[in-house]
Amino acid sequence: MPGFAARPPATPTLLLDDAVVRITRWDFPPGADTGVHTHGMGYVVVPMTDCAMLIEEDQGNREVDIAKGAAYRREAGATHNVVNRGDAPMSFIEIEYK
Amino acid sequence: MPGFAARPPATPTLLLDDAVVRITRWDFPPGADTGVHTHGMGYVVVPMTDCAMLIEEDQGNREVDIAKGAAYRREAGATHNVVNRGDAPMSFIEIEYK
Repeated sequence: MPGFAARPPATPTLLLDDAVVRITRWDFPPGADTGVHTHGMGYVVVPMTDCAMLIEEDQGNREVDIAKGAAYRREAGATHNVVNRGDAPMSFIEIEYK
Repeated sequence: MPGFAARPPATPTLLLDDAVVRITRWDFPPGADTGVHTHGMGYVVVPMTDCAMLIEEDQGNREVDIAKGAAYRREAGATHNVVNRGDAPMSFIEIEYK
């Protein structure tokens, strides 16, 4: 497919998986993505860098910018793909609570 | 009291307080501390910098080093003081779960 360029994958590093939480650090080179996934648990995201995200969902795509030093929480159930739309590496830590 | 030098305080910034979590970013100049406190909730700590901590507890003091990009979880109930024993600013995000 001319013009098609697969995205590099984001790298998940499992930091902790116990009875209460699963903590994963996600590292994205520029243009990398997680692949489409569904969140089975509620989760908190803590950016380790400024994050220039592209969120791809059934309802469409949206750009989300989250600054290092911020944090947010989301309920379980979302299905999306997360892309590093920036030109610098991006990283965040995801804390899923059981 | 000659020779006594009060520590500068660490600065807490409340990022989110909802039905599920309370998220606070703690920023410590060198030598700063939180003051003695008891954790009423279980919590996860995500360092935003490398952290050179001094933990002061009834049982004594201990030095704890946590790297940026790591994370850890602790149960509720601990009573301690957290000091930035390093010579660089230290920061972490604390996610308390309700």
